[in-house]
This record gives sequence, C-alpha cells and structure tokens, in this order.
Amino acid sequence: MIMESMIYSHSVVKEDKKMYDLLNSLEAPEDVKKMSLSELGELSKEIRMFLLEKVSKTGGHLASNLGVVELTISLYNVFDFKKDKLIWDVGHQAYVHKILTGRKDEFDNLRKYNGISGFPKPEESAYDFFKTGHSSTSISAALGMARARDLRGEKSHVVAVIGDGAMTGGMAWEALNDAGFSKTKVIIILNDNQMSIGKNVGGMSTYLSKMRIDPSYNKIKSDFKATLEKSNIGRGVANGLDKIKDSIKQFFVPGMVFEEIGLKYFGPIDGHNVKELSKVMDMAKKMKGPVIIHAITKKGKGYSYAEKNPNKFHGVSPFEIYTGEVIKKSEAETYSQAFGDEMMKLAEKHKNLVAITAAMRDGTGLTEFSAKFRRRFFDVGIAEQHAVTLAAGMAMSGLTPVFAVYSTFLQRAYDQILHDVCTQNLPVIFAIDRAGIVGEDGETHQGVFDISYLYPMPNMVILAPKCTDELRKMLDWAVNYGKCPVAIRYPKGSEDIKMNSISEVVAGKWEEIYGSGDIAIVAVGKMVASAIAAREKLLKLGVEISVISAYSVKPMDTEMLNNLAKSKKMIITLEDNSALGGFGSYVLNYLNNIDYNGKVINNGFKDEFIQQGECSILYKLYGLDAESIVSQIVGLLD
Amino acid sequence: MIMESMIYSHSVVKEDKKMYDLLNSLEAPEDVKKMSLSELGELSKEIRMFLLEKVSKTGGHLASNLGVVELTISLYNVFDFKKDKLIWDVGHQAYVHKILTGRKDEFDNLRKYNGISGFPKPEESAYDFFKTGHSSTSISAALGMARARDLRGEKSHVVAVIGDGAMTGGMAWEALNDAGFSKTKVIIILNDNQMSIGKNVGGMSTYLSKMRIDPSYNKIKSDFKATLEKSNIGRGVANGLDKIKDSIKQFFVPGMVFEEIGLKYFGPIDGHNVKELSKVMDMAKKMKGPVIIHAITKKGKGYSYAEKNPNKFHGVSPFEIYTGEVIKKSEAETYSQAFGDEMMKLAEKHKNLVAITAAMRDGTGLTEFSAKFRRRFFDVGIAEQHAVTLAAGMAMSGLTPVFAVYSTFLQRAYDQILHDVCTQNLPVIFAIDRAGIVGEDGETHQGVFDISYLYPMPNMVILAPKCTDELRKMLDWAVNYGKCPVAIRYPKGSEDIKMNSISEVVAGKWEEIYGSGDIAIVAVGKMVASAIAAREKLLKLGVEISVISAYSVKPMDTEMLNNLAKSKKMIITLEDNSALGGFGSYVLNYLNNIDYNGKVINNGFKDEFIQQGECSILYKLYGLDAESIVSQIVGLLD
Repeated sequence: MIMESMIYSHSVVKEDKKMYDLLNSLEAPEDVKKMSLSELGELSKEIRMFLLEKVSKTGGHLASNLGVVELTISLYNVFDFKKDKLIWDVGHQAYVHKILTGRKDEFDNLRKYNGISGFPKPEESAYDFFKTGHSSTSISAALGMARARDLRGEKSHVVAVIGDGAMTGGMAWEALNDAGFSKTKVIIILNDNQMSIGKNVGGMSTYLSKMRIDPSYNKIKSDFKATLEKSNIGRGVANGLDKIKDSIKQFFVPGMVFEEIGLKYFGPIDGHNVKELSKVMDMAKKMKGPVIIHAITKKGKGYSYAEKNPNKFHGVSPFEIYTGEVIKKSEAETYSQAFGDEMMKLAEKHKNLVAITAAMRDGTGLTEFSAKFRRRFFDVGIAEQHAVTLAAGMAMSGLTPVFAVYSTFLQRAYDQILHDVCTQNLPVIFAIDRAGIVGEDGETHQGVFDISYLYPMPNMVILAPKCTDELRKMLDWAVNYGKCPVAIRYPKGSEDIKMNSISEVVAGKWEEIYGSGDIAIVAVGKMVASAIAAREKLLKLGVEISVISAYSVKPMDTEMLNNLAKSKKMIITLEDNSALGGFGSYVLNYLNNIDYNGKVINNGFKDEFIQQGECSILYKLYGLDAESIVSQIVGLLD
Repeated sequence: MIMESMIYSHSVVKEDKKMYDLLNSLEAPEDVKKMSLSELGELSKEIRMFLLEKVSKTGGHLASNLGVVELTISLYNVFDFKKDKLIWDVGHQAYVHKILTGRKDEFDNLRKYNGISGFPKPEESAYDFFKTGHSSTSISAALGMARARDLRGEKSHVVAVIGDGAMTGGMAWEALNDAGFSKTKVIIILNDNQMSIGKNVGGMSTYLSKMRIDPSYNKIKSDFKATLEKSNIGRGVANGLDKIKDSIKQFFVPGMVFEEIGLKYFGPIDGHNVKELSKVMDMAKKMKGPVIIHAITKKGKGYSYAEKNPNKFHGVSPFEIYTGEVIKKSEAETYSQAFGDEMMKLAEKHKNLVAITAAMRDGTGLTEFSAKFRRRFFDVGIAEQHAVTLAAGMAMSGLTPVFAVYSTFLQRAYDQILHDVCTQNLPVIFAIDRAGIVGEDGETHQGVFDISYLYPMPNMVILAPKCTDELRKMLDWAVNYGKCPVAIRYPKGSEDIKMNSISEVVAGKWEEIYGSGDIAIVAVGKMVASAIAAREKLLKLGVEISVISAYSVKPMDTEMLNNLAKSKKMIITLEDNSALGGFGSYVLNYLNNIDYNGKVINNGFKDEFIQQGECSILYKLYGLDAESIVSQIVGLLD
C-alpha cells in the first residue's frame, strides 16, 4: 500500500525555478486547502526537490523530512493552525512545516548561526507552538494545551505528531496513559516509519509491525469476521453481549493496546496518501476524546539513497545529490570512532563488558561492536532512564556495562544515575559523547550541563580526555577499575591538535603540560587545546603561563592545586560546560578552603541557553576561544 | 474472589509471645517451603499481627505491607533466593520480606538512625538485591540481572514485584517494551491494589480494572468461548488460522496489552491465596521469555482501619492499634498545609491557576483543592516527566500551572524542567515540598540536591521561605509574576520557630534579620532558624553576628552581597542542600568575582548520601545544627 518510491531523475535539480511553481504560489499555509488533490501531489514533489536541493547544501535532517511530506500537507489541508495547534515530537521532521509556514526562503541558513533552527522554535514563527529537540515530549505538551483550551471553553484542535521511535520513550507512555484516562481531546499522529534514528526496537515496535498493512493478514481478518457474524455468536451470551462488545471491537480493530488504555485508534493508513490522510484526520476532528492516527510512512521517501539508507540520511552533512555521497568527510578519527574501536578491543579481553545505547548505536560509534558482540550489545530505544537502571542491574550482577550516550540525552536519566547507580556505588561507565557544544543542533542539544549535574552526585568519578588517545586510556582504566561509577565526557568530532596523551590514568590526578610562569590555566578536555593555543599567543607577547589538563574533573588533584596555590598568583579555569556548577566552581571552592590569596577566574558558558552555529563562532561569542583567553589575561596583567 | 478481610480481634496484640510461634520457628527464609498451606495461612496472620504491633510503634509503611503478606510468603515458597533474585519496586512494601530474611528482631529500630531501612538495602542483607526507594525501577534492574545471568549461562530466576501505581511511571513501560522485544526471561509480579499512594489514575489503571475478577464477566467470557468453539470458526479461514491464533488467544486472555508487546500474561489471580499464587509462580518459572503475573491484592488487608483508609495508612506515624488514631499529631501547620490552603485562596482569584501532582495529592496538601477545583486539578500518576511537560504545555497556552512535588521526585524530571520549561522560559511554578532532609525515609528520599540541579538552569528563579507565611507570599508572588519558571523549595513538617515573614517578595532580594557584628550567616529557608539560634548562643558568648535570610536563592541579592563584602570579615553560608553545587558555592563565586578579601565558609551537606534518622540527629551529624555553627565560628575566632 505504501507508494512506490519516486526516484528523482538526476536532472531535476538542474532545472530552472519553474519546478517550484506551486510552492512559490503559496502565500500562506492555508493556501494548501485551495489546492486540488493532484496539485497537492505535485506540491509534494516540489517540496521533496526543495528539501533535497537545500539540505544537500546545508546538511541537516533529511530522511525524516522526506517521510512526512504528505503528512504535513494533509495536516495543513485539514486543520487551521491559526487556531489549532501542532506539536512536532523531537522536531527534526518539521522542515516541511517550516517550508509551508513562510520560512522557505531561509533554508539556505538552516542550522547556521543566526539562521533558522532545525527544530520548531516559537521565537521563529507563530506556527511553532512548542520548542522541541528531545524525544517523547509532544503528547504531554499537547495535553497541556488541550486542557488550557477546555478550561477556557474554547474550540480548537491540538495535534501531536510523534514517531514510533519516540514512542519507546517512557514519558510518551505516561502521557498516553493520562490522555486515555482523562479523555482530554487531543489528536496524536503516530508517524510509523519503523525507525527512530536507526532500526527501531521494543515490544511496541513489534506490535506496530503486526498491524502494518499486509494484504494476506487483512484478508484473513475479514474472512474470520464474516464467519463469526454468520455463526450467530450472540445466542448463548445475549445478556452479556454489551459487556463483551468492546472486546469484539478490539479484536477486529488493530490498535487495541491504545484502545484498551482509552484512546480511539485509526489505522494503519498510508502516510503518503494525502486523500486518505485527510479523510482520517477529518474524522478525528469530529471524535470526542483522545484519538491516535497510525500512519505508515517511509523514511527517506522519494530519494533512492535515503530510502535505501535512511540511517545515513537521518542527520547528514552536505552531500552530492547525484551520488548520495557526503562531501568533504573529515579524515581524522572522531572521539566516537575511537570509543567504538576501543570498545572492540576491550570486549575481546573483558568477557563481562557490555554496551548499552538508547537508539544511538551509530552516532556513538557502536556499529561494529553491535555486529561482532551481538549478545553483549543492548539498544533499548529512546529510553535513557531504563538504559541507566538496566546498567545498574547489570553492574550489580557483575557485568561491566558501558552506556554510550550524548551529554544532552543523559540528563533524561538524572534520577536513575543518582538513585540507582550512585547510591549503590555501582561500576557503571557513562561514555558521554557530544559533551560541550555541538554546534548546529543548537540550544536543545548543547552538552553544557553534564559537569553541573554529575559533580554533586556522591561516588561519581568524572574524567575528560584532551585527545582521542586519552579517551581510549580512560575507558581502559574505567573497565579495569570497576569500583564506582565513572563518567567520561568527550566532545563531538575530532581532536583539534595532536597531543601526547597521559601515560597513566589516575582518578584524582591532573597533567601539568606546561609549568612555568605565575599564571596557570586549568583546562578541561577539549579546552586544553585552546589553553595551549592561548599560551602560544601569550608567549609571543612575552607572557609565560602554565597549562594544566584537569583530566580528572572529579575527584580533583588537590595535591597539584596545593602546589599551584603556592606558586601561582592567578589560576584560571577553562571548560566547555556552564560556568554555573561547573568544574571551575569546585576549583574555586577548594582554593577558598585552603585560603588561596591569588586571583581565581572561572571561564565557562554563561547562564543562558547556547544558540546554534558553528562551534568556532560560539566559542568566540562566549569568550572561550584562545584569543578571548589571551585578552582576558592581558587585561588582568595591565 | 478476593479473600474476606480478616478484621483482627482487638485483643490479639495483648496476647503473649506464643502468637508468633510459627514466625519464631523460622530459622531461614527457605523454612517457608517446609510449611503446609494451612501453616502458611497461620504464618500470614502472625506476620500481620507483627506488622501491626511494630509499625504502630515506629510508624512506617503499613497498608502496602499488609497487602503483600501472602504474595511475599508465596515468593519464598516457590523461589530460592539464595540463587534467584528479587527486586521490590519502590521498596516500601518489603517489610514482610525483611521479616522473613532474618531481620524480624530489628523492627523496633525500623527507619531510625542506625536502624534497619524502610526500603531494601543491599548493605543490610544478602537478600536485598537492589536498592530501591523511587518508583518504577524494578523491571529495568531485573532485566539487567537477568542478562548478566544469561551471558554467563547461569540458571536462576529474577523476579520484580511492581505495583499498579508504579506502572504509571514511564520507565516501567520502557523496561516492559525492552523485555517484550528481547524476550529476556524475567518474572514480573504486578501487585495490583488499585492504588499507588492514593487512588490510582491513568488509562492502564482503567485497563487493569476491567480485568479484575468479576464473576459475571468471567461467566460471559466462558459462555462466549464455548459458543465460538461450537460454531467451528476454523472452516472459512483454515489457511490463515495460525496467523490469527494469537489474536484469538488474546481475545480470551486478559492482559493482551502485555501479550501484544511480547510478554506472557497470567492473571488476574487472587493475591491473598498462597496456593493459587504458588501455582502460577511455579508455572512462570517454567516458561521461556518474560512473564507478567497479575495479582489482585488489597492494600491494608486484615486491619480494618487500613482497609477502609489505605491512604492514611500508606506511610503512617505511630498510631493506636485499637482506634486507628495517629498518636501525638502535631498541631502546628505544616508547609504542605500552608501550601494547600494558599492554593485554595489563589484559585478563587486566579481562574487560570491549575495544580498538578504526580500521585502525591495528599502529601503535598492538595486534597481540598482537588475536591473544590476538580477541573483544575490534575493527578497524572507517578509520572513526573509528563507532569512537567504537561505544565509547560499549559503555561504555553496561558494557564498558571503549579506542580507540587517532593524534592527527591522532581529530579526525575530534570530534562523536562530544563528542556521544556526553561528553554522556553515558561511560567511554571514548582512547589518543591520535602526539600532538605526528610529523616526516616533515608538516603533515597533526602531532598538535598534540588538547588544543585536547578541553579544552573537558565531562567529559573529559586525561592526558599523561612516560615510557612513566607511560603504563602512566595506562591502569591509567583502566581502574579508569571514571567519565568519559579521553584519554591520548603521542608517537611512545620516551621521550627515563629518568625516574622518578609513584607514583600522580590526576586533578587534577601532579608537582613540581624545586621550587627563583622560576621554574617547567610542562610537558606529552614536553616535561617538555625542561624538565629546560633546567633543567640553566640550572643551569650559575647559574639555578635548578622543573620541574613537568602530567600531568593537565585537570583542572589548582589547589592546586599556587595554591602556584606564591605562590612564583614567573614561570610558564612548555611543551607540544607548538598554543599556541592549548593547556594553557598554561588555566593563564593560572586564574592570571588568582586575580590572579597574576607573569609567565606560554605556549610551544606557533604559529598555523600545522607542516611536515615531523625532530622535533629542528622543536622548534628553533618555539622548543620546551631551548636555546630557556634563551634565553627568560635573555632575561627580563636
């Protein structure tokens, strides 16, 4: 039933502007309503071409957006988002929505500094009703808006679009549970592409699969139904028929899991058929209570390379449309690759080593591990809370679990880290990728809070490598140590400069890279390179400084701090975490406790959400690049 | 089907020791296996009497434990917990388990300083396999242990006991989803008492209700089944019968929601029938893959007052067995009561004010509000993540949501506070009850991290009242202000001494209560009383100090800090939060930035989990009582 893929002729994008005729004719989102079905079909094609043309240049989320073209058009065909509300779960699939709501001409600056966001952003448009970025929040937010509507006696619709991947997140279940019980009217579109970022997992995924359109299964279902009707089943149970009516309905209607908890289910329907989608959405508008529409879509739809490899085109760098090849792929080993590679080596030796991911296998570098150590690899879906407590259970039973996760997503399991891992002092290893700023994904994805939230947790050791080789050594150390929780935080991408790694990892020790002068920069992880660059610039100005790599963020190297306190008149900390509750604040605290008389300066991100843009722009903007540090020191010396 | 309640004769507890004959005869947990069914029935009675006798004196969780007597006995009857593993979700229902595992004689010190915990605690017994305290973690932990077992090729069982209330927590769903998909063998006992702490909510709860034992419903079911069998339904669908077999089974078997996501469901069964429970548990042992056993229990079972009012006897203070009346109930208004009362007043004036709780209506003081403002009250179940994002959606649509929650549970929604509320600067009010230490519930429940995790969140205002009247004023202020997220943190219980409240709440202002001397204590909330007490003691020693109530934790009163920096030689902070990332660290940071030359001392809880015990003992132990502060200052002056 799913539309045959439209493989774009390789010549289309070379054509002139005419190919966006319909798209250009749209003056307001509601103009979609004026188009005929065949025009909407043409519009879909134009939007796909537009997405390909733009995202191939800027990079961004492609496959998920190609998958929701008809879905988005149908939403605008049926609803009136001048009064109705629309919430995109996660939000990386909102490009089509952005195109239809007056932001088409801003796509050249998609995800760039001061450009439009890759996610819904209320500051950007009156049609972006709720900021998203993390998964599984949309039904909760929609229920909140629907209740505001009901309390005020208003009439309008609130629609949440959520992927089957996001449905693995527990809070989506919490919200469904509430919706079904309270009967608050919300319309949930389950955008089922059998994927989250990679192949989807979980019992719900299996369940949805069973419901997907399968002609033979449907045939059997209707045969069975006819037989049952003929057999006059009512006879023996006349009195109780009402009571079992619901059960019979659920038997013949797929989606009984949703029906049982109190939602009205429609589906599964073809998510690339505007006519069918519009019809069902219209029906849903008329229903009372919460409704879930199960739409089957194809991630990457219409672009052959993305259809074949939706994973690669989930979040993609600029690429060549005709070949599907990513342009200018960096040669340097990324931290994620180093992590994945070291995990492979460690797994050979340590039979108890297991890896856990929350739907981020490829992003965290665990692809090879998952293939080679299939039984020791666990993808739990977008379920960070479960991932952490699962790891706790494993550690309690003698395994060495490594949870590989992005910094911004680990915070979804704050309580599990504290309550399940740290209170029991369990040797769970947190491999925290994308710590610090991540650039283009912007404020919902920057990893600038992990030191702040992890440091106050008793028993936690926090390490930060200054280069990929140190990441390997720290991972080795943590796997062998096995006495407490260990968090290793490392940035997106590759190391900035080649550096010698420490010879041995010792929790509570730092590395003095340069020792002279009476000013010391104590830097964390990636920022060590910036400190070294600042030192080089200062040397040219005749100022000599020390540079310390504070690779053991917690516990700190108090012996070295004692020495620094004796020999330095100024101690400057530098980290790519929020300054609030950051590493520097603990250095200050220690130096205060030992009555240090010199000057202490803490550099980190200030108390605001860090916007999107190239990391180099952001470091400069927030005074964390080498030049800013030089200016700061020169200013202080004056 | 549920057993008739055994209402204890009011004379039983007056009898002599003989009444614990069977209980006293147990030398090891496995001795349960040697008992006959009728002896196990007698044992149940003895355990109930024992629970009543002990908990009526110490206080603690009574109703939930009375409800799982037979369930626990059956577990020990069927499993061998020398090799099998047992995880109690939340864990407040593990008293019977503790009684059976050699801790009977320690119940006089239940929940006391150095006594046994009210929750499972691996340090306490080899039979406590995993520490719990917060809800919905057990299935995740059990899966972790089961996977360790499978990877090592061991043969044993892992059992998780989880209440229907805990099933509203999203992470339980995440874990079920993983279990159903992976087919890892775990045995989940769903202890369904139609309650969490109060009346249960959510679509799942409705669903479970439908399955509960109802003779007429069961009659109809079997009538219908017989009719269907006679009608020879196979004829028309012979070829496809295999495919629909599962569906037919699910139709006749309750629990299809669980079956559909891949678990084998047994139930519902009578959770007070040891024979039936043992039989089903035995069957579950033999099954492959994950199994869920749905047991219906009665909270408070066997004690009439608790059966009638399980809510009151959930967590109860010492009480009079014969009357069910709580002994020595304090007369002073608690912070929770003040909060609830003020909410009532505010709701009259502010039509947009709504209240949200995560299964803590009574505990947070919202009972009256829920009755009077039914449409503006939302109990979402044990679902803190959903609660916060629901509030965000409401605030985005112009409502003024107040989420009333205990400090230790709010941390379960860390990401939602940061990602959904703070990034959008939404005026959600967090009424954080039980901030600071809570005493007897111990390390999993102390609220000593909230300042640490909330302070680094951009846009967040944090307030802390020193008395109940200030809590009222702060709530009024926040409801009227409506420009940003506001967290108001306040302790368990009542105020220590009567104090004059501030006349006006201003974010970024503090109150100077006493201004003389060259030492200032800057204290937060409840600790202001301790600072005043310390001042009084110091006065007697001839030392005069200032006392500041830092009621606006964030933003700080920088003007006052500037003045203090000029006039004081010593600034001492005092808070009932962890010192790490606590309020004091931000004061130090500010004073460092303005080059304060005096001494700064930060007092807060140190970097460890705070054990159970009376709060007064704990304050002393951690150096946060008035005497300790006096000693600290005297020591510094010497």
